[in-house]
Amino acid sequence: MPTNGRHAVGAGALLAILRDGQPRTRGELARLTGLSRSTVSQRLDALIGSRWVVEDEGAISSGGRPASMFTFNGGARVVLAADLGATRARLAVLDLGLDVLAEQVTGLPVDLGPEPVLGAVATSLRHLLATAGRDPAQVCGVGIGLPGPVEHRTGRPVNPPIMPGWDGFPVPERLRELLGERPKERPGDQPRDRPGEWPGAPVLVDNDVNVMALGEHWAARPAVDHLIYIKIGTGIGCGIISGGRLHRGARGAAGDVGHIRVPASGAPCRCGNTGCLEAVAGGASMAAALREAGADARGSKDVVALMRAGDPLATRLVRQAGREVGTVMAAIVNFFNPSVIVLGGDVAEAGEQLLAGVRETIYSRSLPLATQHLGIRTGELGDRAGVVGAAVMVVEHVLDPATIDEATGERPACIAAR
Amino acid sequence: MPTNGRHAVGAGALLAILRDGQPRTRGELARLTGLSRSTVSQRLDALIGSRWVVEDEGAISSGGRPASMFTFNGGARVVLAADLGATRARLAVLDLGLDVLAEQVTGLPVDLGPEPVLGAVATSLRHLLATAGRDPAQVCGVGIGLPGPVEHRTGRPVNPPIMPGWDGFPVPERLRELLGERPKERPGDQPRDRPGEWPGAPVLVDNDVNVMALGEHWAARPAVDHLIYIKIGTGIGCGIISGGRLHRGARGAAGDVGHIRVPASGAPCRCGNTGCLEAVAGGASMAAALREAGADARGSKDVVALMRAGDPLATRLVRQAGREVGTVMAAIVNFFNPSVIVLGGDVAEAGEQLLAGVRETIYSRSLPLATQHLGIRTGELGDRAGVVGAAVMVVEHVLDPATIDEATGERPACIAAR
Repeated sequence: MPTNGRHAVGAGALLAILRDGQPRTRGELARLTGLSRSTVSQRLDALIGSRWVVEDEGAISSGGRPASMFTFNGGARVVLAADLGATRARLAVLDLGLDVLAEQVTGLPVDLGPEPVLGAVATSLRHLLATAGRDPAQVCGVGIGLPGPVEHRTGRPVNPPIMPGWDGFPVPERLRELLGERPKERPGDQPRDRPGEWPGAPVLVDNDVNVMALGEHWAARPAVDHLIYIKIGTGIGCGIISGGRLHRGARGAAGDVGHIRVPASGAPCRCGNTGCLEAVAGGASMAAALREAGADARGSKDVVALMRAGDPLATRLVRQAGREVGTVMAAIVNFFNPSVIVLGGDVAEAGEQLLAGVRETIYSRSLPLATQHLGIRTGELGDRAGVVGAAVMVVEHVLDPATIDEATGERPACIAAR
Repeated sequence: MPTNGRHAVGAGALLAILRDGQPRTRGELARLTGLSRSTVSQRLDALIGSRWVVEDEGAISSGGRPASMFTFNGGARVVLAADLGATRARLAVLDLGLDVLAEQVTGLPVDLGPEPVLGAVATSLRHLLATAGRDPAQVCGVGIGLPGPVEHRTGRPVNPPIMPGWDGFPVPERLRELLGERPKERPGDQPRDRPGEWPGAPVLVDNDVNVMALGEHWAARPAVDHLIYIKIGTGIGCGIISGGRLHRGARGAAGDVGHIRVPASGAPCRCGNTGCLEAVAGGASMAAALREAGADARGSKDVVALMRAGDPLATRLVRQAGREVGTVMAAIVNFFNPSVIVLGGDVAEAGEQLLAGVRETIYSRSLPLATQHLGIRTGELGDRAGVVGAAVMVVEHVLDPATIDEATGERPACIAAR
């Protein structure tokens, strides 16, 4: 049986109480945790030292003598987030309340390889941070979504099919280095203020659909325990929330639904198998079918544009793609019994035409108990699901009591490099 | 974002440390938890009062003066477990190490209805407890697996198809009453010792495949994070472990894979749909096919017996059932990426003939990353998976620090009625 490995009660328990924003005295914190006052003081010192908590001397205790109050200092911290797609990247600075303070969308083909891509990401993130008027020392952590499988523990891509040169690349270590490099001065540049030192904030990496699932799960609050985010773009994949936590699977390979076989299709797939969902319902396959019929369609966005323009073949393809996705999801609904299925990705911009096909098949093939309260809808965050989710991944990591306690000397993980 | 709702550190944290069996002093416990010594003493008093912990005065501290040592008292407690099937029940008494102290298998058709069935269960459990030489006051909790959907929070069956009269029945409350009733004395009986009072131990209920998954997950230790237990008997269903925890789904309906559609089958299913997995690979459907061919087969066990006797149709049916199960599981492997798939139920007794079909399809249809380290095997506990799993459910509940802390007055939940 799993045991709770963390017995000691450290700074994390104090932060878990204080993050509601309410100021509290040492005495209140001791009473709420059962910790001795000296332990509380010691842990508070660590949190104040790392700027997670601020002390306010002004309050008056019931005895008339001023008692120090301690408050969570979340507003002073920011998260950097990057959502890398096949050809575009979205980069953002967010506060701990997940509000976007600055963001940028830029063309950045991931197949350029890790050095140029991460270099561009670091430059843009530094620039956005300055735009938001924040300092590197305020950065709590960096979250990255990549368009391929990632070993989350190490942050390294694992045989990513559309990312040549990235296999096993140490993304967190290299990005931390790149963020820490001072911008090169060109001859003739005026001397200028140096940016603050990078504090070695942790860099967390996961695949794009996992971070999108985290983002939509956060957006779907109050708590939805079991959510499936399915991204239908060039390819098809999904992110899974089970019991409020990301389910990554034994090898981090969970959610690879694009290569599930759908009945009555023998279409060849880029994976080498035939009859895969992606080969009939992915944006690339639909665009290919439209090109064969003489239309000008290079990718998912063109398929949706043609459908919106009333092209009958594009409309039929999108509707049928919805049914094929629905066939696979019907089985998954019986197996997993989610509360919500969120559709995202470029093809999901087709909206009702796609949803109708998905719903039609799920309702006809899944069990009534599992579909009675099932929500099937498009995402609430749209294109921002990735950067918001990447920030959620960082915030959950750095505010986790276990992370804070386990970091050496009980300094929050946002100080200790990951 | 989910926050850790439990901030205070109570008896549960002490028990989480002590359950490794190592004796410890008050000072050690204060140091390990950060709690004040007076808080530790207070929490220890509660644990000693409820017999979870025993005090040993004999040890010598470094200062020469004897320091009391405190030890987990797991051996003194037992769990009662019942695994109810359609026609048979297995009942057992287990200790907290999950060793079976006494057990019984008995014919008990669940469609007799809740009153006679729970009455028989209570009588048998009381009898088994006496056989094991234990007292009702030692009972920590009661775990029940039922052959139908159960709302775990309340322990009530939800529209169970093969359990007439059980829908919404308050199983925990009624079983607690029945266990607390003194056995009726018949005229002429000699006066005898009264059994100890029933302490109102919690009764936890879940569906049979969920408790079997818990049992096999426990047996598969060291930790397997993601496990699927699939029971192939008259019907087909599965229990799911995600991240070490049971995944029940939004409505407790997760794991209902028996009604997932399989390609190229239009066989009518008892659920009202056609082409369900259960309608081609369930024991009932195979037995029906054998009867049509003139064989004497009433259920799953007869199918397996005929296969073992060399009947070519039975062998072909079992092999094909394996392939059909494999088709569904191949999709689930891509979606969920489990570490292990465990096959159980009467049809799984066919062993290699079934496994071969399952493996053949999964390996041909799932992604290499997901199957590289995937274990596909029959259960380690055999028929005992249900009672062991029911006991795991109880032990995890009563030893959960949150349960212990949340019970009123910090008395362990095994004392406070659920």
